[in-house]
Amino acid sequence: MSDETERLPPRSDFSAWYNEIIRRAEIMDVRYPVKGLYVWYPFGFALRNHTYTHLRSLLNRDHEETLFPLLIPETEFMKEAEHIKGFEDEVYWVTHGGLSPLDVKLALRPTSETAIYPMYALWIRSHADLPLKLYQIVNTLRYETKHTRPLIRLREITSFMESHTVHATWDEANKQVESELVLSQEFYHDLGIPIIISKRPNWDKFPGADFTMAVDTVMPDGKTLQIGTIHHLGEHFSRTFNITYEDVNGRQQFGSQTCYGISERCIAAIIGVHGDDKGLVLPVTVAPTQVVITPIIINKRADEIFAAVKTLEKELKATGLRVKTDTRDMRPGAKYYHWELHGVPLRVEIGPRDLDNNQFVCVNRLGIKTVVPRENVVESVKMLLDDVNDQILERAEKHLKNHLMTATTPEECNERLNGNVVVVHWCGYRDCAEKLEKLTNSTILGTEIRNKYVINGENPCIICGKMGKTALVGRSY
Amino acid sequence: MSDETERLPPRSDFSAWYNEIIRRAEIMDVRYPVKGLYVWYPFGFALRNHTYTHLRSLLNRDHEETLFPLLIPETEFMKEAEHIKGFEDEVYWVTHGGLSPLDVKLALRPTSETAIYPMYALWIRSHADLPLKLYQIVNTLRYETKHTRPLIRLREITSFMESHTVHATWDEANKQVESELVLSQEFYHDLGIPIIISKRPNWDKFPGADFTMAVDTVMPDGKTLQIGTIHHLGEHFSRTFNITYEDVNGRQQFGSQTCYGISERCIAAIIGVHGDDKGLVLPVTVAPTQVVITPIIINKRADEIFAAVKTLEKELKATGLRVKTDTRDMRPGAKYYHWELHGVPLRVEIGPRDLDNNQFVCVNRLGIKTVVPRENVVESVKMLLDDVNDQILERAEKHLKNHLMTATTPEECNERLNGNVVVVHWCGYRDCAEKLEKLTNSTILGTEIRNKYVINGENPCIICGKMGKTALVGRSY
Repeated sequence: MSDETERLPPRSDFSAWYNEIIRRAEIMDVRYPVKGLYVWYPFGFALRNHTYTHLRSLLNRDHEETLFPLLIPETEFMKEAEHIKGFEDEVYWVTHGGLSPLDVKLALRPTSETAIYPMYALWIRSHADLPLKLYQIVNTLRYETKHTRPLIRLREITSFMESHTVHATWDEANKQVESELVLSQEFYHDLGIPIIISKRPNWDKFPGADFTMAVDTVMPDGKTLQIGTIHHLGEHFSRTFNITYEDVNGRQQFGSQTCYGISERCIAAIIGVHGDDKGLVLPVTVAPTQVVITPIIINKRADEIFAAVKTLEKELKATGLRVKTDTRDMRPGAKYYHWELHGVPLRVEIGPRDLDNNQFVCVNRLGIKTVVPRENVVESVKMLLDDVNDQILERAEKHLKNHLMTATTPEECNERLNGNVVVVHWCGYRDCAEKLEKLTNSTILGTEIRNKYVINGENPCIICGKMGKTALVGRSY
Repeated sequence: MSDETERLPPRSDFSAWYNEIIRRAEIMDVRYPVKGLYVWYPFGFALRNHTYTHLRSLLNRDHEETLFPLLIPETEFMKEAEHIKGFEDEVYWVTHGGLSPLDVKLALRPTSETAIYPMYALWIRSHADLPLKLYQIVNTLRYETKHTRPLIRLREITSFMESHTVHATWDEANKQVESELVLSQEFYHDLGIPIIISKRPNWDKFPGADFTMAVDTVMPDGKTLQIGTIHHLGEHFSRTFNITYEDVNGRQQFGSQTCYGISERCIAAIIGVHGDDKGLVLPVTVAPTQVVITPIIINKRADEIFAAVKTLEKELKATGLRVKTDTRDMRPGAKYYHWELHGVPLRVEIGPRDLDNNQFVCVNRLGIKTVVPRENVVESVKMLLDDVNDQILERAEKHLKNHLMTATTPEECNERLNGNVVVVHWCGYRDCAEKLEKLTNSTILGTEIRNKYVINGENPCIICGKMGKTALVGRSY
């Protein structure tokens, strides 16, 4: 569905590169006739499915999957004051069924607290029902008025994982927040994506939360992308929706809650963080095709080569690998171009000389070539695949490290924000944050930073000079 | 989440049984505060996931999965006249984004022809792009005014598989219709559900189709449940949406299309067709737990028994089976009750005597007991599981056969429709159909019936006496 002869823009021109790769690698089609709504191509959707299958496998260790309705009656939606305020500009309203107006307007879920918690109030009776840890992966809708962009800012988030837990105490809910952070670390590690965790400033937390922990990554242009949030909801919603339980002493108590979200921005991170001038570079964990086999055909030995290729494909598939063999009648260079564009982690070639030498030539997506003997080829391929994941993570870590700067004055901060995120010290007051944000056209992402390249400490605030804490400043998507 | 001490209503009182089993076996919660919208419990959703995973595996042989937006602009939705007429009473309309009215109203997809086909028009250029076979599994919404019922008639169909194909010619599209029918047969065979395929009367076809083939099953009360439809769309939509391709002679031609749908009614069929007075009876293919192991503990040999149980669980899981061990401290009878209610196909028991005899006692969900030796236990369990699937299919086939009657007069037809479907002969004219339907409070489901117990032939019409064809009459959900 795309013309592969044109060149991609260089990744250094990130915005142009991103738009082109979304189209050329057949991730999404942006031509759907409503702003902010996109169509998943089969290849993009396969990448999406493998990514969410992996996320599910991590969640299923101690959460259960469930599904709640898309439509939320206005009466429920309007119950939690802060929550309404946070979402009132972005909610789509259904007002008519067929030709008749509805008695009660229905909101398309922008997130599902108000759909789920009335049911939790029915389900939870006693301390024995706790903790309750459910998640769903659903489409959610937000009437975005800002500039929309595939996978990053959309009106229909097609793949929103939202987890909602209830606990007996605030401390237990807090432990859950930690546990979801660990899960996020594992998930993004498996995708080769380095993350920075921080606590969002109070005014930037989820509407109705005690506090919000956020997971950000740094895109090639130095802008941050929020790719996960975990909210400690305390008793805000349990008081509103009357989620109570009888404790061991027979007393009614309010549950303490958390919620946790990851959207298809995780796919945007995979594309943005790893891609290069040739196209996608996909982590082995989620690549729709992990290995592509390309026979190099010289006529008189074609049969022999096809036989070797077929055997190899069968052996690799038997171990559960996702393998394709490209026997199309075209120049090898054109094939390589195609598979590199689509980010296939490893290419295995075999030609007449390899047959003679009892070997295969493996080239990974980062261009590293290894000749492996016919014997134990399956093991060798698996090792090379592990290497790809390590190499892309290492490369991404290096990028992150190189784009983490420090600054002690607003001028320095402003200058270094070009293509970077910046660590400063900040007193914690909103006044100073707003001054800094205005002077540098940026955002204070958070404090209590968790990342191996950042040391949290105390130093004078970059604005007022009073004692402040380590804070992360960035320009974000 | 449910009280297991009450008895289920008998399955012979099907409507009461169905409502209770939905709640007691934790399939769905009906207490969501909007009519026709239900909440999937984790157990129900696991059953749903295994069922759709199986459906996906069949579709993926020659379709690709994709995803289109939920929201369809009124301008696209209104393009195909018959289609609008068929859906205008059931469409939910989004009229506001945040606090502002939208310029163009957005329909929540009741089905996705009008979302998908504008994109197909962009994607298809030449005969080389055909056939195109894509599917998606999505939530669709219909403003049902009739009595709603979980999984059967709902306002949010949460799990609608819709396949949309484009072909060069009407005949090739027709072959695709046949191929989707074969897929449906395989899918429902794997679920142990016997089906009757027929061609719907012309006035009952999908709005915008040349013809509709339907897949029905017969529920315990003799009412039919439509659990799949395949539509030959001809060029209706390709002419409206301008889906054209250049043929080998360089001429522009309209594509010929099919669409195909299966909703979560397939889960209703699993529950209704197989269940019994004790609860669910799940096909092995989709049971969230395929084998439950229950140790029979006598204190002094508890360790030995637990060890045997643990080994067995490990061995079974290693072959990919979904196994649970129930070590709860409660009476074995209460455990059996619980797992029978949830439809687990096979229970394996081990007590002191079995230890001594080097054996396990296996009881399948239909109550058939088999003692298997310790040696080769994994193979034995697998064979017993295959047997369960065969047995439930056989039982369901027998039910269907016993509830297929024939009739030659409207009075006979009316009488036999109590708890059955009836085969008659019908001239094909709408007048006669309407007379029969009125006299018998039923529906002509279709002609050109495909089911091994029905022979298609010619005989006088049950109403007018002119020559007619075999037709299926039923009362349907």
